[in-house]
Amino acid sequence: MKIIKGFPSTSQDDYPLNVTTILKHAVRNFAGQEIVSRTRDGIFRYTYKDAHERIQRLANALESLKIKPGDRVGVLEWNTHRYNELYFGIPGIGAVLLEMNVRLAPSDLIYVAKHAGTELLFVDETLISIVEAMAPEFKPAKGYVILTDKKLSDIKTKLTPIYSYEKLLKEAKPEYDWPMIDEKSAYSACYTTGTTGRPKGVFYSHRDAYLLSTVAAITLELSCRDCLLQIVPLYHALGWCNHIAVLLAGSKLVLPGRYTSEEFGSIIDLMLQEKVTVGIAASAALMPIYEYIRNMKEKPNLSGVCLFSGASEPPIAMLKGFYELTGAKVYHGSGTTENTAWSTANKPKPWLEGKLSEEEKWELQKKQGLEVPGCDVKIVDARGNELPHDGKSAGEFLMRGPWVVGSYYNAPETADRFTDDGYWKSGDVATIDPEGYIKIVDRIKDVIKSGGEWISSVDMESEIMCHPGVLEATVVGVPHPKWEERPLPLVVLRQESKGKVTKKDIIDHLSKKFAKWQLPDEVKFVDGIPKTSVGKFDKKVVREQYKDTYVRE
Amino acid sequence: MKIIKGFPSTSQDDYPLNVTTILKHAVRNFAGQEIVSRTRDGIFRYTYKDAHERIQRLANALESLKIKPGDRVGVLEWNTHRYNELYFGIPGIGAVLLEMNVRLAPSDLIYVAKHAGTELLFVDETLISIVEAMAPEFKPAKGYVILTDKKLSDIKTKLTPIYSYEKLLKEAKPEYDWPMIDEKSAYSACYTTGTTGRPKGVFYSHRDAYLLSTVAAITLELSCRDCLLQIVPLYHALGWCNHIAVLLAGSKLVLPGRYTSEEFGSIIDLMLQEKVTVGIAASAALMPIYEYIRNMKEKPNLSGVCLFSGASEPPIAMLKGFYELTGAKVYHGSGTTENTAWSTANKPKPWLEGKLSEEEKWELQKKQGLEVPGCDVKIVDARGNELPHDGKSAGEFLMRGPWVVGSYYNAPETADRFTDDGYWKSGDVATIDPEGYIKIVDRIKDVIKSGGEWISSVDMESEIMCHPGVLEATVVGVPHPKWEERPLPLVVLRQESKGKVTKKDIIDHLSKKFAKWQLPDEVKFVDGIPKTSVGKFDKKVVREQYKDTYVRE
Repeated sequence: MKIIKGFPSTSQDDYPLNVTTILKHAVRNFAGQEIVSRTRDGIFRYTYKDAHERIQRLANALESLKIKPGDRVGVLEWNTHRYNELYFGIPGIGAVLLEMNVRLAPSDLIYVAKHAGTELLFVDETLISIVEAMAPEFKPAKGYVILTDKKLSDIKTKLTPIYSYEKLLKEAKPEYDWPMIDEKSAYSACYTTGTTGRPKGVFYSHRDAYLLSTVAAITLELSCRDCLLQIVPLYHALGWCNHIAVLLAGSKLVLPGRYTSEEFGSIIDLMLQEKVTVGIAASAALMPIYEYIRNMKEKPNLSGVCLFSGASEPPIAMLKGFYELTGAKVYHGSGTTENTAWSTANKPKPWLEGKLSEEEKWELQKKQGLEVPGCDVKIVDARGNELPHDGKSAGEFLMRGPWVVGSYYNAPETADRFTDDGYWKSGDVATIDPEGYIKIVDRIKDVIKSGGEWISSVDMESEIMCHPGVLEATVVGVPHPKWEERPLPLVVLRQESKGKVTKKDIIDHLSKKFAKWQLPDEVKFVDGIPKTSVGKFDKKVVREQYKDTYVRE
Repeated sequence: MKIIKGFPSTSQDDYPLNVTTILKHAVRNFAGQEIVSRTRDGIFRYTYKDAHERIQRLANALESLKIKPGDRVGVLEWNTHRYNELYFGIPGIGAVLLEMNVRLAPSDLIYVAKHAGTELLFVDETLISIVEAMAPEFKPAKGYVILTDKKLSDIKTKLTPIYSYEKLLKEAKPEYDWPMIDEKSAYSACYTTGTTGRPKGVFYSHRDAYLLSTVAAITLELSCRDCLLQIVPLYHALGWCNHIAVLLAGSKLVLPGRYTSEEFGSIIDLMLQEKVTVGIAASAALMPIYEYIRNMKEKPNLSGVCLFSGASEPPIAMLKGFYELTGAKVYHGSGTTENTAWSTANKPKPWLEGKLSEEEKWELQKKQGLEVPGCDVKIVDARGNELPHDGKSAGEFLMRGPWVVGSYYNAPETADRFTDDGYWKSGDVATIDPEGYIKIVDRIKDVIKSGGEWISSVDMESEIMCHPGVLEATVVGVPHPKWEERPLPLVVLRQESKGKVTKKDIIDHLSKKFAKWQLPDEVKFVDGIPKTSVGKFDKKVVREQYKDTYVRE
C-alpha cells in the first residue's frame, strides 16, 4: 500500500485515539445514564457515574495485583456489568483484555491462554469448573479473580491464589488518574473459533476499538434516547463494540447476564421493562427467541424496536415473523473476529422503497448489507481479479481498513490469508449488487461443487428454513461418484410437524427457487444439528458424518 | 502529554484515515443519493455517482495544471456543488484546499493567500472583483480557474492565465485512481478571522477531517433517510464537516448557493421541496431567516426539521419562535476554526425532561451543550487550575483532541495560546454544569469588569434580545472613571417598535434577571451593529466607537 505525503497539518495528530477518552466523555456528559445487568437474583442497576467509580477501583486493584501495561488478562464471564467494567479497567491501565469464549473446549482455552501469555484470569463463579479443567496444563502466574457476590470462603475450589472481585474493589481507592494509552497498543484480544485448525489470535488496538465504536454508533443510529440490549456475548469480537458505542451516544445499556433457553420469557420482560430500542444478537440467537415468541399466547409489543442480527443469514420467515408478531424490525449485518465486529449492515434505502416488490424487499433485507464506512472491500475471483458489482458474480470477499486484522498473532503459517496489497481474505464467497448490498453466498470451503458448477449451501438452507414446518436446517456438499459433490440437507422439524413434513415436501419447496440439477437427492431429518462454540452450524462435522451418503449407493 | 505503550496490536493500524476512503464508500453504497445545488437559474441536481465522475475529472484536471501533493489551492466560492467537488478533488490528489472567506477584506485575503503559499485559485465569477483587487499584490503562480457556466470569452477580466472549470472537467478523463493519502497530511486550511491581529492559519489533517465527520454524523444523527441543508458557508472551518458526514451516512445534501436576505423565501421553499430534515447555520444566519418567517403570512410547516445553530448563543425568542411558528426544533452547538468544527452540541437528555421547568428547559437549550465525544475539555482559572462543573464557576475553556489545533501555521508568536499539556486556549469564558452542559458566558476580552466583578456581555445581550421589540443587540464594556468598566447596550429595534421602546423599557426588562449594580446606565438605540466577516458582533469596533460614553460625563 503506497501512501502519499502532502503538506504538514497543524492538527493534534499525535493525540491518541483510545477508549479511555470515550469513557471519560461519557462520565462527564451522561453521568446519570443507566447500566442494567440481569443477575441470578434480579436486576442490578447503576449509573455511568457509579460504574466509573468501580472501574477506577478495578484499575487500582489491577495495579495492586502487579498487572502492568502490556500484560494479558483473561476473562471468562457472561454479559454482566462486571464484564463491562473489565472492558474499561483492564485496557484503561494499558493491559490487554483477553476475551475467552466460555463455549470453547478446555483444550482450546488452554491453547489460547498459553498462546496469548495470560498473567491473570477473571472468572465467574459458574465457570470455575472450566478453569479447574485447564489448571493441570495452565495456571496464570498472578492467579484468579472470582466474579461473585459470595464470600470467597463460600467458593469451593482448589485454584490458587484466588481473589474476590468485589472485595478487591471495596478495598481499592475510588479514584484513578487514567494514563494516555498509545493508540496502536492492544485494547483487547479475541481468538477465532473456526472449524479448522487451532484458534488464531487477533489483538485489537485502541485505535481500532475507538474507530469501530464510532461506526457502530452511526450504524445503529444511537442517541441518548436509546436503550441497547447486548444479547451477543461480550466475548465475541469485542462484543461488536456496542458497549463502547453506547458511551459515545450516551445510550442506556442492558446486559442480560447468563440465561438459558427456558429463560427467554424473562429476556423479553427485560426488553419491555427497560424500554429497549435496539437489540443485538447473532441470528442463531434470535431464532430461538423468535420460536419462544411464536409459542407465547400473548405476543409482546416490540414496535419501534430495531433488532440487529449478525453472522449467519437470517431466514426470511424470522424477519417477517418478528415484525408481524411483535412489531420489531430485524436488520441484518455481518462481522467476524478478524474485522473486530461490524463489516456490513443492511440499511434500507428510502429510494428503493417504491421500486421493489414485497418479495424483493425481503430478499434484500436478509443480505449482509452495505459495508460500514471506513474500510475497503472487494470481491475477487480465484486469480485475484476484482469482480463487478452486478449482484451475480460471486468471489472471495476481501477487506482492508483500520479495524481489519493485518496479521494473526504469532502465526506465520497464516500469511496466505492476506494479499500483497494489504487485504484480509475472509474465506467468504459473496456477491455485491449495484446498490452495494453484499450477500455472503457461502464459505469457500462450504460451496457445493456439483458437475463443475457451484451451489450455495447458504441459499439452500435459508430457503429450506422458510418452510413453515422447519425449525432449522443446514446443507453440506457430500462426495458423489459422478458429480463430485451433491447437496445434502439436514432438517430439524418443528415439534408439531414431525412425521408430517416429508422429503418430497422439502424438495418441492426448493424447486420453486432452485434449478432441477441443483435440487438435493436426499434429505435427512434429524433432531439437532452440530454447532460450533459460536453457534454456527458445524459443517465440517456434518460433512464427515454423512460423507458416505452417495458414495455407498 | 505522556503516552503509555502496551502490547502490540495485530490491527491494520497503519491504514490511514482519509476522506477519500469515505468518498469511495459513499459512491459504492449510495450512488443514487442526490446532491442538490441552488444556482442563479434554478436547481442543479445530480447523484453521488455523477458527482464522483466530476470529482475524478477534477483530479485529472488539477494534475494537468501541474498541481502536486502538498500544493495549496485557494477557493473563493459560495455553497455550491462545485465547491463540494473541490472539497474532494483537491485533497484527493494530496493537495490542500485553502478556504478563503469571501467576506474578508482584500488585504486580509492577500495576507492569507501569501502566508499559505497558494499555487492556484478557484473563483466564482461573481467574486472575480475580489481576486482582481488582490492581483496587484498577489497572483497565484498557476493562475485562476473560473467557476461559471459561461464561456470563458464572456468573462471580462484582466486576470491571467484563466481557465474554465467546466471546460477543464469536460476535457479531463472521467476516471482517476485515487492514491492513499497519509492521514497526517493537510486536507484543507482555514484562517481565523478574529477581531485582533492578522488571520492565523489552521491546517486540518485528513485524520482530523475524517474523525470530526464521524462526530458530526453521530451528533446530527444522520442516516440515508436524512436531507441536510448546508446554510453555514463551506469556507467556515471545513464547512463544519457536514459535507463529509453526509457521505458516511448516505444522506442527501442541499446547497443553497449564493443568496441575499431578499431570497430567504426561496431558501424556505427549497427546504420544503427537498424535504430537508437537518439544517445547519450560524445563529446569526438563522436570526434573519426567523425574522423573514415572522413576517410571512402563511408559516411554512417545518415540523420534524432539526436546525443546528452554531457560534453565538441563540436568543430564546428565536428558539421558541421557530418551534411555535414552524414546528422546527433548533439545537445549539458551537465550534471554532481552531477545533475544525463541532466542539459542543446541545442534546436534550430524556431523564431531564421531567425535572426542569419550562423556563429552565429553554435556558438549558441555549447553552452550547455537551462536548462532542473524542476530545478533552476543561475550564480553568487565571492560574490554570481546573474549575468544578457546578454551572457557576466560570473559567477559560480549554480543549485538546485529534481535531484541535496544535499550533498555528508559521506563527511562533502564538505559542502562548497553548498549555504545556497540549490544550488549546479558546479565549472563551465558560461554565460547565454537573450534567456536562457548557455555557460560553463571554470572550475573555469581552467580559465587562465592573467594580472588581465580572458581568457577562453575552448574557446581557441575550436577555435584551428576548424583549419582543428588539431585533438585535450587543453589549460591550466601556471605560468608566469610577467602576473601571460599565456595560453599554447597543440595541436595534424592530421596525414596528421604533420610537416606542425606551431606555427605561430595556433596563426594566433586564432588571428581572440582573442585579441592580449590573444594570447599564445607558442604552444606545442604533440602526445596525458592526459585524465581523463571519457575522459576529464586532465588539472591538463598538468599544472603540463608544469608549468615551462614560468618561466624558
